[in-house]
Amino acid sequence: MFRRRFRFLPLLFLPLLLGAAQADHGVHPEQFFLVLIAILIFGKVFGELAERIGQPAVLGELIAGVVLGGSVLGIIPADGTMREVIQLLAELGVAILLFEIGLETDLKEMFRVGPSATLVAVVGVVTPFLLGFLYWVLVLPDIGTHAPDITNTMVAIFVGATLTATSVGITARVLTDLQRIHTPEARVIIGAAVIDDVLGLVILAIVSGLAAGAALSLFGIAMKFAVAAGFLVAAVIVGNLVAPRLFGLIDRMRVRGVLLVSAFSFALLFAALAALAESAMIIGAFAAGIVLSSTNQFDLIAERIEPVADVFTPIFFVSVGASVDVSLFLPWSESFNPSVLSVGAALLVLAVIGKVASGFSVGYGRNKLSHLAIGIGMVPRGEVGLIFADIGLRRGILSPEVFSAVLIMVMLTTFIAPPLLKVVFRRAAPPLEAEPAPAAEDAAELPAASP
Amino acid sequence: MFRRRFRFLPLLFLPLLLGAAQADHGVHPEQFFLVLIAILIFGKVFGELAERIGQPAVLGELIAGVVLGGSVLGIIPADGTMREVIQLLAELGVAILLFEIGLETDLKEMFRVGPSATLVAVVGVVTPFLLGFLYWVLVLPDIGTHAPDITNTMVAIFVGATLTATSVGITARVLTDLQRIHTPEARVIIGAAVIDDVLGLVILAIVSGLAAGAALSLFGIAMKFAVAAGFLVAAVIVGNLVAPRLFGLIDRMRVRGVLLVSAFSFALLFAALAALAESAMIIGAFAAGIVLSSTNQFDLIAERIEPVADVFTPIFFVSVGASVDVSLFLPWSESFNPSVLSVGAALLVLAVIGKVASGFSVGYGRNKLSHLAIGIGMVPRGEVGLIFADIGLRRGILSPEVFSAVLIMVMLTTFIAPPLLKVVFRRAAPPLEAEPAPAAEDAAELPAASP
Repeated sequence: MFRRRFRFLPLLFLPLLLGAAQADHGVHPEQFFLVLIAILIFGKVFGELAERIGQPAVLGELIAGVVLGGSVLGIIPADGTMREVIQLLAELGVAILLFEIGLETDLKEMFRVGPSATLVAVVGVVTPFLLGFLYWVLVLPDIGTHAPDITNTMVAIFVGATLTATSVGITARVLTDLQRIHTPEARVIIGAAVIDDVLGLVILAIVSGLAAGAALSLFGIAMKFAVAAGFLVAAVIVGNLVAPRLFGLIDRMRVRGVLLVSAFSFALLFAALAALAESAMIIGAFAAGIVLSSTNQFDLIAERIEPVADVFTPIFFVSVGASVDVSLFLPWSESFNPSVLSVGAALLVLAVIGKVASGFSVGYGRNKLSHLAIGIGMVPRGEVGLIFADIGLRRGILSPEVFSAVLIMVMLTTFIAPPLLKVVFRRAAPPLEAEPAPAAEDAAELPAASP
Repeated sequence: MFRRRFRFLPLLFLPLLLGAAQADHGVHPEQFFLVLIAILIFGKVFGELAERIGQPAVLGELIAGVVLGGSVLGIIPADGTMREVIQLLAELGVAILLFEIGLETDLKEMFRVGPSATLVAVVGVVTPFLLGFLYWVLVLPDIGTHAPDITNTMVAIFVGATLTATSVGITARVLTDLQRIHTPEARVIIGAAVIDDVLGLVILAIVSGLAAGAALSLFGIAMKFAVAAGFLVAAVIVGNLVAPRLFGLIDRMRVRGVLLVSAFSFALLFAALAALAESAMIIGAFAAGIVLSSTNQFDLIAERIEPVADVFTPIFFVSVGASVDVSLFLPWSESFNPSVLSVGAALLVLAVIGKVASGFSVGYGRNKLSHLAIGIGMVPRGEVGLIFADIGLRRGILSPEVFSAVLIMVMLTTFIAPPLLKVVFRRAAPPLEAEPAPAAEDAAELPAASP
């Protein structure tokens, strides 16, 4: 038992190796490799531990980031060239992630899920946003300080925005793990989560514009909305015109890996164009995914991009986790701030109420538990919320304290959703007859699923 | 015809986009994305064009690098943070490439190919090295200048080293394209090329040590040889002990992408350890590949690493090409130097003679043409020669002029081998009866293969 428990101890030697590699300033390749190894291995080990206790792997990756970050082990430095390189790879990782989500998004399918999903999505975005915004404006929590040129309204908008987006990836994964992905409730949740993601992306473009220093006016917001929605629509339309001819041409090329590299470049190009159009890069990557999801080579692209995503996506989550300043939570630390915990708890409550409300906004449902199941299915926040928070932190709109409070909210919504969903779905929606047989391993984890 | 020929014209807009993205100093993600897109797309387009005229894709990637480099378009800058980031990704790319080559290398298979392959490999390494070394020491070409603390002997060793390594990747690819991969001659060539690569890696470790400033003594060289060979042997032995237990453990993990990420980290860790042991990173990556080639998950690892290699390997070749200073070859340029061309030509002749001699060193062969076929099969230099040259340039041992002369040699050996092999193999070794049918597309390219 002792040996099994400490089998990851060799990981602790990594910092020593790193020390040996840090001979002088400037980033040595071996130093870069070791930091990358630390990110990937800690990400996978913590991800695995998270899954073992029934939580999504992304939670483990966030925690791995906290451990590797400047306030604990310091393997991911807080600044310098190494941090810049990791940050660029993290941006690459989140672009690939959104590209993958886009690839899995069928526009027609999305429109067909109907009014239920749309209503859940809109209510699930508007309610938490308003709750967060009003909470901030009315309560005006005394936490951290922001630059004098940042108004409280801007902070309130950012905080509201971080509460909006459901993580479609996490939700879909949890529902699959629970073997409920084919239930009617699950279909509404997935449809709503996808629409919700698009809404979230538009909101992200708005807040990104705000963060970049655009003045806050109704006209400005309307313009941002127009640019963000317009870019998405234009990218999808133009992309749909260009992609078939482009990928028809690529189909006739024979050099190794040309399809993957073209798709990858296509995603990066759309991301860069989005940034140049003062929208958000991930909107571009997402649009690129939607466009390519309708090409003939869709299956191959999805299959080939997956290993690349496996390597780069965790870098983003670990990198986000590394931004957490642990000392804020330690009672014996100088920078301990109980407000962070209380504000985080308040945001968590608002985040849950806002999404559960969305579940009750639709007439659909076999019973009250169905409404609750849908609402709770929308609770886990994830990548998009973290991206909001990250932008807010780096632009100086969210103070480190507010960022940490938001991170508590994101982590806890992700943390409480799976067990809650397990309880609610067990009663509200038994697995359908046609449900495919689970893998033996998963079945052992879920006694509820056995007859 | 006009439209078909100019279908790649839109690529020319990339520099414009890049200009728009270069708002201030520091690397913006969108700027990074655009440089990455340029590297990948130019690499694939030039690689495709190279294949279309019957040349290996790697040649196209080198030329793409020349075009993107500081002396032509300037999209890959000569220095600064962006160059540093690209360089780190290039190191990642070459590590993955050597890891892949290692994965394809079966140690037992390699020993079984027998004395023929070993003899060809040893003669094919020693002869070109001696030719290059003696040429430099005796002729002492008046080309470029090196730092005063660099002796001519060191330069001569480096030049000799760049002549040694056959590109197993290129050779195997060419033989496959020619549908001669299963002929006895091909088996000797492949076996020899693999052994040759290992010898080349050991030589690389020696010259890397020299480049790092180790004094040149017979004892020093012997030590370097011991360290390099010792690291390789130790890495393979220790790796073979550790890997089965490690990957058995990983087999029981369930989190997404854990196998790929573990294998990838394993390669990077061996690479970093090699660097810390003052050996070369690619030896470590190669050893990691050999170790994992004997695990149960070998097939899956090879399959999953391929897309990652597709994305990163070209970055290395493009990055190497970007180091070429084109103005050295332009008669109207101030820095034009006819010696570069003449030294490059001299090295090319030595490179071909040295490898052809190796083909005649073995008793094996159906006739004289068989010997010639084996010798020419060893001619294409590739990644390892480029790595030597790159290290020599960056450490200041090879002047930019000598580097360019070496690059001419590497590019031309790679360029002339496929057509020469086509001619020689057509007469020396007709395709075997059991040869699998070629893909329709390839068959159209190779009229010689039709009955």
